[in-house]
Amino acid sequence: MKPFDVAAIGNAIVDVIAPIDDAFLLKHNIAKGVMTLIDEFRALTLHEAFPQSREIAGGSAANTMAGVASFGGTGLFVGRVKDDRLGESFAVSMAKTGIDYSTKMATSGAATACCLIAVTPDGQRSMNTYLGASRELDSSDIDEEKIARAKVLYIEGYLWDAPDAKAAITKAIAIAKRAGNKVAFTLSDPFCVGRWREEFVNLWKNDIDILFANEEEAKALFEVEHFDEALQAARQSPGILALTRSEKGCVVASGNELHVLDAEPIAKVVDTTGAGDQFAAGFLYGLTHGKRLDHCGRLGAIAAAEVISHYGARPEVALADLAAKF
Amino acid sequence: MKPFDVAAIGNAIVDVIAPIDDAFLLKHNIAKGVMTLIDEFRALTLHEAFPQSREIAGGSAANTMAGVASFGGTGLFVGRVKDDRLGESFAVSMAKTGIDYSTKMATSGAATACCLIAVTPDGQRSMNTYLGASRELDSSDIDEEKIARAKVLYIEGYLWDAPDAKAAITKAIAIAKRAGNKVAFTLSDPFCVGRWREEFVNLWKNDIDILFANEEEAKALFEVEHFDEALQAARQSPGILALTRSEKGCVVASGNELHVLDAEPIAKVVDTTGAGDQFAAGFLYGLTHGKRLDHCGRLGAIAAAEVISHYGARPEVALADLAAKF
Repeated sequence: MKPFDVAAIGNAIVDVIAPIDDAFLLKHNIAKGVMTLIDEFRALTLHEAFPQSREIAGGSAANTMAGVASFGGTGLFVGRVKDDRLGESFAVSMAKTGIDYSTKMATSGAATACCLIAVTPDGQRSMNTYLGASRELDSSDIDEEKIARAKVLYIEGYLWDAPDAKAAITKAIAIAKRAGNKVAFTLSDPFCVGRWREEFVNLWKNDIDILFANEEEAKALFEVEHFDEALQAARQSPGILALTRSEKGCVVASGNELHVLDAEPIAKVVDTTGAGDQFAAGFLYGLTHGKRLDHCGRLGAIAAAEVISHYGARPEVALADLAAKF
Repeated sequence: MKPFDVAAIGNAIVDVIAPIDDAFLLKHNIAKGVMTLIDEFRALTLHEAFPQSREIAGGSAANTMAGVASFGGTGLFVGRVKDDRLGESFAVSMAKTGIDYSTKMATSGAATACCLIAVTPDGQRSMNTYLGASRELDSSDIDEEKIARAKVLYIEGYLWDAPDAKAAITKAIAIAKRAGNKVAFTLSDPFCVGRWREEFVNLWKNDIDILFANEEEAKALFEVEHFDEALQAARQSPGILALTRSEKGCVVASGNELHVLDAEPIAKVVDTTGAGDQFAAGFLYGLTHGKRLDHCGRLGAIAAAEVISHYGARPEVALADLAAKF
């Protein structure tokens, strides 16, 4: 069988995106710039209040896989939806990317997950996530043969909010390690790090070969005040670090190799949704295609710049074309 | 004899600073944001055109020494003025800092150097330097006993524009090395690097223990396009790197140790004159007082933040007080 570049496990979520002002955030008690978990009732209420919303398949790791595919990479996505309207929409959108998505749809239980994303005029996004069916992912969804075929197994931290998913991840990590493949992990969100800090630190020490984190997440993981302190703490473990810093660029490191890379310049930040997901896409595409670490970082920066220049968390142009220019 | 923390050699210059708009720069053909060398006639013409100017002792390395003294450090400054009004003003201002300044005043030859600094509303400074007497510094000005007493010998790249000064620097470096002291060097200005690139690269490879450069200077030195490329090139030589990046902070490195430090937040940038000089002051003060490299970088950032929050290239508060808070 042909190998995959990346196998990703994540929450299968349909994004509902609306441009919204700060007054709306206040009125509806939406925490700005972060991801908040909500229940089905609040999801319905907010969905009704959202004006001019657009629906688009999302989920952090699924977005990353769409990016990997856009670069010309191959891969697999594992995440559970329900057999309902949003679930079908999710499956169709994954099929369009060319990414292998064959997790069995649930026929009972909670509805397909959705993430209500309020995008304010400053480009910040405030996410309200109803995890629904996605939190019911379990070990039976992990296909050993397919996971073993992927050069890198990529896991999103958000999965820790879905208890059954942990067993699935443990199984997947064991498969990847047995096959001699790499394990990559993204911290996902500073609040998510706050909820699962100790487990994430242990993962970084023991199981993770490639760690993705933005500045706030990295500082939360190591409970430090300054970026450099997080960098020094993270460098204590072997493995590749890809730390993103928004307009300050990123720091990419492995052992004594360390690169300080600039963000890709863009005319205007429209919506930062998916910046981290697409950075990971570029980085993982580079890594699975034998690129140097600094090139991986620049591919990440290019993909992130593309996705924040428009609404939505997935690329609107072929990232392979952008990569070819650089 | 008690050791000095730092012995600095540089151009002894009196700054003439005026707040000026971009139209003035255009009218008088002043290149924005950089240092341009001018002759005595142009110095007189510009001086007359400068409205509301203030005179203050300057010169890059002399500013650094004023900063070192403000932190509570000790030191020596070597640089030549003429026995004229500006020369006296320079000597008095150095005496006030507590820095040992005993270079013999010239009684003939060119007038004391001055730097006409146009500060635009965006905080950028455009410098027009008449080197005058300062370019007549020679080996006879290097006091072996005093140079040998300093833990660090600090040299400004601007000196390369004064031909006789090179022999003086070579002598001083030899003294420092014989005494087992460190040699620090600042690249000063991207155009200065352009004029002396090859010599500076050789210095970095062979003689310099501590290199100060801002992003543009570092890129000019290694003829590369991106900051990270300059960083990687600079890391090829042993020695300490202190690379400043304005609002992006700084990168401080030595061997496998590498810190990515933030700029110190300030309310408003008034005048960036002296930011690099004061960064070097904080860094050198830290280094000569046994601080860790990241602490040295943070002391540099604190000093730079203080000096850019007001007009002028020297601190207006005791940097020792700011350092005590951190």
